[in-house]
Amino acid sequence: MQVLKFGGSSVANSANIQKVTDIVASAIQKEPTVLVVSALGGITDLLLKTGALASQADETYKTVLKEMETRHLDAVRELLPIQQQSATLSLVKQQFNELDGIYDGVFLLGELSPRTKDRIVSYGELLSSMMISAKFQSLNIDQLWVDSRKCITTNSNHGNAAVDFAATEKNIQSHFAQKPHQLYVVPGFIASDVNNNTTTLGRGGSDYTAAIFASAVRASALEIWTDVSGMMTADPRLVQNAKPISRISYQEAMELSHFGAKIIYPPTIQPVMSRNIPVWVKNTFAPNEYGTLIENNSAVTDSFIRGISSISSISLLSLEGSGMIGIPGFSKRLFEALANESVNVILITQSSSEHSICVGINEVDSAKAKQTIDNVFSYEIQTGKVEPLKVESGLSIVALVGEQMKSHPGVSGKMFGALGKNGINVRAIAQGSSEKNISAVLSAFDVKKAINVLHEEFFETSYK
Amino acid sequence: MQVLKFGGSSVANSANIQKVTDIVASAIQKEPTVLVVSALGGITDLLLKTGALASQADETYKTVLKEMETRHLDAVRELLPIQQQSATLSLVKQQFNELDGIYDGVFLLGELSPRTKDRIVSYGELLSSMMISAKFQSLNIDQLWVDSRKCITTNSNHGNAAVDFAATEKNIQSHFAQKPHQLYVVPGFIASDVNNNTTTLGRGGSDYTAAIFASAVRASALEIWTDVSGMMTADPRLVQNAKPISRISYQEAMELSHFGAKIIYPPTIQPVMSRNIPVWVKNTFAPNEYGTLIENNSAVTDSFIRGISSISSISLLSLEGSGMIGIPGFSKRLFEALANESVNVILITQSSSEHSICVGINEVDSAKAKQTIDNVFSYEIQTGKVEPLKVESGLSIVALVGEQMKSHPGVSGKMFGALGKNGINVRAIAQGSSEKNISAVLSAFDVKKAINVLHEEFFETSYK
Amino acid sequence: MQVLKFGGSSVANSANIQKVTDIVASAIQKEPTVLVVSALGGITDLLLKTGALASQADETYKTVLKEMETRHLDAVRELLPIQQQSATLSLVKQQFNELDGIYDGVFLLGELSPRTKDRIVSYGELLSSMMISAKFQSLNIDQLWVDSRKCITTNSNHGNAAVDFAATEKNIQSHFAQKPHQLYVVPGFIASDVNNNTTTLGRGGSDYTAAIFASAVRASALEIWTDVSGMMTADPRLVQNAKPISRISYQEAMELSHFGAKIIYPPTIQPVMSRNIPVWVKNTFAPNEYGTLIENNSAVTDSFIRGISSISSISLLSLEGSGMIGIPGFSKRLFEALANESVNVILITQSSSEHSICVGINEVDSAKAKQTIDNVFSYEIQTGKVEPLKVESGLSIVALVGEQMKSHPGVSGKMFGALGKNGINVRAIAQGSSEKNISAVLSAFDVKKAINVLHEEFFETSYK
Amino acid sequence: MQVLKFGGSSVANSANIQKVTDIVASAIQKEPTVLVVSALGGITDLLLKTGALASQADETYKTVLKEMETRHLDAVRELLPIQQQSATLSLVKQQFNELDGIYDGVFLLGELSPRTKDRIVSYGELLSSMMISAKFQSLNIDQLWVDSRKCITTNSNHGNAAVDFAATEKNIQSHFAQKPHQLYVVPGFIASDVNNNTTTLGRGGSDYTAAIFASAVRASALEIWTDVSGMMTADPRLVQNAKPISRISYQEAMELSHFGAKIIYPPTIQPVMSRNIPVWVKNTFAPNEYGTLIENNSAVTDSFIRGISSISSISLLSLEGSGMIGIPGFSKRLFEALANESVNVILITQSSSEHSICVGINEVDSAKAKQTIDNVFSYEIQTGKVEPLKVESGLSIVALVGEQMKSHPGVSGKMFGALGKNGINVRAIAQGSSEKNISAVLSAFDVKKAINVLHEEFFETSYK
Repeated sequence: MQVLKFGGSSVANSANIQKVTDIVASAIQKEPTVLVVSALGGITDLLLKTGALASQADETYKTVLKEMETRHLDAVRELLPIQQQSATLSLVKQQFNELDGIYDGVFLLGELSPRTKDRIVSYGELLSSMMISAKFQSLNIDQLWVDSRKCITTNSNHGNAAVDFAATEKNIQSHFAQKPHQLYVVPGFIASDVNNNTTTLGRGGSDYTAAIFASAVRASALEIWTDVSGMMTADPRLVQNAKPISRISYQEAMELSHFGAKIIYPPTIQPVMSRNIPVWVKNTFAPNEYGTLIENNSAVTDSFIRGISSISSISLLSLEGSGMIGIPGFSKRLFEALANESVNVILITQSSSEHSICVGINEVDSAKAKQTIDNVFSYEIQTGKVEPLKVESGLSIVALVGEQMKSHPGVSGKMFGALGKNGINVRAIAQGSSEKNISAVLSAFDVKKAINVLHEEFFETSYK
Repeated sequence: MQVLKFGGSSVANSANIQKVTDIVASAIQKEPTVLVVSALGGITDLLLKTGALASQADETYKTVLKEMETRHLDAVRELLPIQQQSATLSLVKQQFNELDGIYDGVFLLGELSPRTKDRIVSYGELLSSMMISAKFQSLNIDQLWVDSRKCITTNSNHGNAAVDFAATEKNIQSHFAQKPHQLYVVPGFIASDVNNNTTTLGRGGSDYTAAIFASAVRASALEIWTDVSGMMTADPRLVQNAKPISRISYQEAMELSHFGAKIIYPPTIQPVMSRNIPVWVKNTFAPNEYGTLIENNSAVTDSFIRGISSISSISLLSLEGSGMIGIPGFSKRLFEALANESVNVILITQSSSEHSICVGINEVDSAKAKQTIDNVFSYEIQTGKVEPLKVESGLSIVALVGEQMKSHPGVSGKMFGALGKNGINVRAIAQGSSEKNISAVLSAFDVKKAINVLHEEFFETSYK
Repeated sequence: MQVLKFGGSSVANSANIQKVTDIVASAIQKEPTVLVVSALGGITDLLLKTGALASQADETYKTVLKEMETRHLDAVRELLPIQQQSATLSLVKQQFNELDGIYDGVFLLGELSPRTKDRIVSYGELLSSMMISAKFQSLNIDQLWVDSRKCITTNSNHGNAAVDFAATEKNIQSHFAQKPHQLYVVPGFIASDVNNNTTTLGRGGSDYTAAIFASAVRASALEIWTDVSGMMTADPRLVQNAKPISRISYQEAMELSHFGAKIIYPPTIQPVMSRNIPVWVKNTFAPNEYGTLIENNSAVTDSFIRGISSISSISLLSLEGSGMIGIPGFSKRLFEALANESVNVILITQSSSEHSICVGINEVDSAKAKQTIDNVFSYEIQTGKVEPLKVESGLSIVALVGEQMKSHPGVSGKMFGALGKNGINVRAIAQGSSEKNISAVLSAFDVKKAINVLHEEFFETSYK
Repeated sequence: MQVLKFGGSSVANSANIQKVTDIVASAIQKEPTVLVVSALGGITDLLLKTGALASQADETYKTVLKEMETRHLDAVRELLPIQQQSATLSLVKQQFNELDGIYDGVFLLGELSPRTKDRIVSYGELLSSMMISAKFQSLNIDQLWVDSRKCITTNSNHGNAAVDFAATEKNIQSHFAQKPHQLYVVPGFIASDVNNNTTTLGRGGSDYTAAIFASAVRASALEIWTDVSGMMTADPRLVQNAKPISRISYQEAMELSHFGAKIIYPPTIQPVMSRNIPVWVKNTFAPNEYGTLIENNSAVTDSFIRGISSISSISLLSLEGSGMIGIPGFSKRLFEALANESVNVILITQSSSEHSICVGINEVDSAKAKQTIDNVFSYEIQTGKVEPLKVESGLSIVALVGEQMKSHPGVSGKMFGALGKNGINVRAIAQGSSEKNISAVLSAFDVKKAINVLHEEFFETSYK
């Protein structure tokens, strides 16, 4: 058994779905396949937008809903032979009737609750999976549409529900224990709680669905089909020469995931990694390209740097003061204050002098971080032991990633040498003992230059 | 008014005290002077050892006490003209009689309380200051012995008492408001609480006494006389070519203070820095050498790296796990656990991937740190979200220090380039946004080589 | 200005509303009047029941809704002269159309959120107040319907919203600053948050509305019209000879409020008591009876016991153990445990031996109280210092209330003497230093007898 | 085996010790006996006073020490036949030599640490037990002096050390496993920690020693010999007709222990009660009187009230306010505040109205209780939800004690009836569900009258 997952751009329209059909038709020659699909590209956002309109008593929601219906009906007409369209057309219409009722309810109540939002958004994957299921049916492929809401059990935290893995694995296995099929078509992203209310899996949800099924059926491989040919050595929007990465470890993939592109969201593939199931990232629109193979343990390759990641809109907080020397507890109070305000800590660095600690956070959190920390240390600030928190914004983090760095002294020298030679000022540095990642904080103005300099240094020269 | 402080090696014997006398005699030509002295070199340890012997009912304490008495009486005889000895000899004998009574009490009770320990140890500075006062008396210098216990008021935390600055400043100022003298001789290290029990000021206590007096009398300068010609660019025991630093900022001095030599303990000089009083570090045994001038604000010099510091016996803790991504609160729990166990955090680094945090602590704390952190995260460890804490020991931190680094891009490149070229593996890196310090964690085996490589790179070539 | 409030039974149907009309018509002869009304008796429960049916996709909700509409339309037809009915009939129908839409929304979404529940339930008071407003209009009385949602501003805690008193007082005062009217008709119970979403005021909400208006307009009096002739000396369902209380202090009224009848819920009248506005409890169906006057300070009367209150379904928790003696902190841990589990403490008694503490709580909370307390004291229980918590259920509290008790020694003797003579065993006793209340814990079997014995002793004999 | 313990007044001088000798000589006819003795009456206080003098450099400590020595030597001479005195006289002198050394140490250091205080005070019991051991030796009784410091192991909390029961029981049992003797003479009150430093057992320490030995040797009985003929129905200094109590349960004895006389401190006898060993309280000076038998379970007797206890110098705190109704957490915050300030709570009463809680504490704690509680509730006080804490002082608690009260309805009626008839105003009442104790808070002026009234009612009339 293998699991293939196709994202929204891969199923954006009938032309694309045709490509998916070809890939899957070829895949099932090898072994039985679970096919997980996202909603048609753009549909999820439209469903939510329509809900927002309805809750604000804006009747144009009906127009948007009509357009969505038309788009799905057109796709059905393009995908299926004319004599096989009617059942699917009527199935699609039925879904839109249901949706229509829900939107009317939202309109009448002027309220869009998290529970209703999950119900609404689930139609995107329901529709796409039903249509694709019908497509394979029309090709006489032995396929079964599987309702993932009956398989994946979660808690009731609508919008970002937590999976009950024990129950879910049991559900899936009992589902697949019945008469086997060549192909199972599964809507991604959606699940249900113990009261049978529809829930959704949050960010990266369809990948998560795919990984959960792959883990439960002990799949031979999980393939994530997207619109790029795998993970890249750097953000291709910033670096013209960015190249695909052929093999990468799970750890490295996690380190690289901060990329703008965000091809995969690492926590979603955890279920397969813990079972050592290989993950491929492939391109629907260039299926012959190698793509990226994510393995649990990094194979030794000739290139020991895997890629360059970057995060923008960073603020650096600096807490300094001679009063901090040798007194345990400052760090705890600092991070407790940030945690209480739900400020996510992206980078920390405290060098050996012990009287200055530096924390990188998202720029949007900087005002509340400043306020809460100055408040927590108000006594020390008044008595001159600690200075008011310094906040610098307009920064970015650029990180070099690679598990084999560890055995290659000199990476940091080469990295900071290249930046220095190009006059790029580094505001803070952090490298942990796992040595999979060296992060440098820079002015946002220097990011593009820095990434290109580093890419040239590590990927475009013959340095080894 | 100026304040001069002489440490234990400067007053170890009559020959050295003679050098001190010359320096001070010359200094008072310039302006009235406060002279703060430590106990004769080695005496503090002997006083404590004698107390320990007495409390363990070991009668040899009497022998050690006798030896100490002889050493002080001999010094008096060497220092003073024969016809002026008797008063001072009898004063010294009286102090030893008092000490004798205290040691007898300790012997009888078999108990050495913190309060009694402070009483005992105070005799070291009392004796040295009385002898030096007598010396200046014999030279017909207009001098006054000042009992610092009457000047510095602390709480009753024996062994490491906290100064009540408001009361202390008032005491000192009313003392100095009386008939002025050319020279005031003050015992360092000792103070008293509001019940007139003797207390001591902890680590670096005599420097602290000097800084407190300098601040209270608004001194023109504070001179710390020691046995080296100022702060050095690196630990001279490790780097043969280490050179004295002529000018350094207070901030830089704090960053450099981790040196083995520990010439000054920065918190002790805080009282003068907040009043912008310059601090000189000078060599009693080479008084003509320039020494080091510590100023509040770093003057721009041609060398923008001030020195290289190192700390040995470091353990690196690494907490890793995919469960850490995007969840606020992990850092808080980690540092709370360390604070609860009073583990001092020396270096922190969390690079941008957010799923690994790395903390440098003293090796001696690593076992309890491991235990408490594994305990705090036991739920996450069991559920596989976090891995058990990794602890690596046998490490050292090497840090490059200099406030002007900030305006010189390329320092980090040069630093890590030099380490890399020499095959030195860097286990972790931290540089905060103040850019006064770049710290690298290395194997203890590489420290000597690393410091020499860096010293050569930054201090022995014409690099600017 | 005076404020009159009529509860649900007073406006249950057109016959009753006619009585209300008479009372109010007479009241406005005296001074301008604010009339606060509840929903028609039983309507609030029906509105909620209908919502529950709709959310469970039970289409019978439509029938119930229709019945409610008919009841209101019938009442309009009975209340108003036929030629003046049409406007009000159409107003009522319009409200039901809106309600219909909301219920449809609930039905479509299968969800009844707290926000929607508040919207639904608000129609009860909106309808009753509109109908009564029309009634007075038809009588040519100069009246104005006031939307209390525009007057009372709350937070968004739907179902039990907290009033923003500053904003509310301002709203009401600016409302009443306009052209004055003889009568203002105000729907009770409902309010709105800053986003103009409808909220409700929780238990006793219409009384609360009346008190809020009375306080804001500095009313001369607040009259609470209900279906009994004031507060009684004991629960009339238990004591045949229970008599009305003519005058009572606010403090006493609070003490007595635990009655089954719960004529008023004391926190709701706090706004008027803090302005010293007298509160009358009167009977719509016997308007000439004196009723009860609640004043801020208890007037001295010849009877110094005001009444007898009782609370049923009580459990007594007893924590005992020799390990409790003389150790501060046990009480704190006990009450912290109860507070963490949101267990409401009704009675506490710890007698002077310090090794036993006894707490009365609602029976429904006893299981979780037992569990949490045994857990909190598990160490002490294991080591034998404290015994596992004893829980006795099937108990009731009977309390004697009266502020002038204090000056009459012997009340407790008389009380317990009467109970003793009648063989009623008292399980626990509590009387605080305010001496407004003596509480006895009894078996539930003895409650009726105990209350009658005490009523006879204190109210039916000539004892003074 | 049986355990007899004699207090300080029983061994105050040689005449009294002679009485002890007679009682013990008779006891050992029955079975082997452990004899636990206190210091000679008054000696413990003198030892401490002498220590205080020495630590304050007051040389009169030598005089007091001399007087104590003389008193002990005189007692030896009176107790022993002249030809057998010398060994004991020299033993006593040796103890005083040791004490002399310790006092000299205290004098020299000017410091009396808790550890040294324990060492000093231990000589009281060491001396008395050695002298009494010698007395029995001179009578040719087969006796052994047992060093209780070698038997009872505690932690190092000097002045009030906590017993390690497991280690202690093992020590004692191994001690008694050797060759048996008729009589073992044991110094009470003293013990040692694991470093063999002498510790003491705190309040009631000699009773505690006796109970620990009795429990460890599974004694048939523990006899506490004192200077009164057992526990009394009321404090004989207040009630002329107070009578001895012949039998009482352990629970009742705990309830009664608040008496001025404080014959026993209940926690000290816990070790025997948990083994069901009966405890007798007997009078050394009237050995034929019955005394009091304390049993684990109360035997049914004809009198169901055991006694009347009283506690003076009580303050009542009252926290009131309408804001307290129905909100969990008020009690917790109140008792947390008291616990943080180490205020011992003696009586609590919260009657059923839930908006007033009343706490009885020692008068000395009332100022800090007021301050901390007003502080904790400052927000509620400012917003008028709670009134500032009321504190009433000059109060006492009078309590009726008896386990069989429970089966006799009417006790409370009789109690409060008697107080009422006599015009005694009761400020607060508490009776817990164990029904072993009814406590009433009264003005201190009324206490004597109240106790006499109650004593007459329950003990001097034929009421049953």
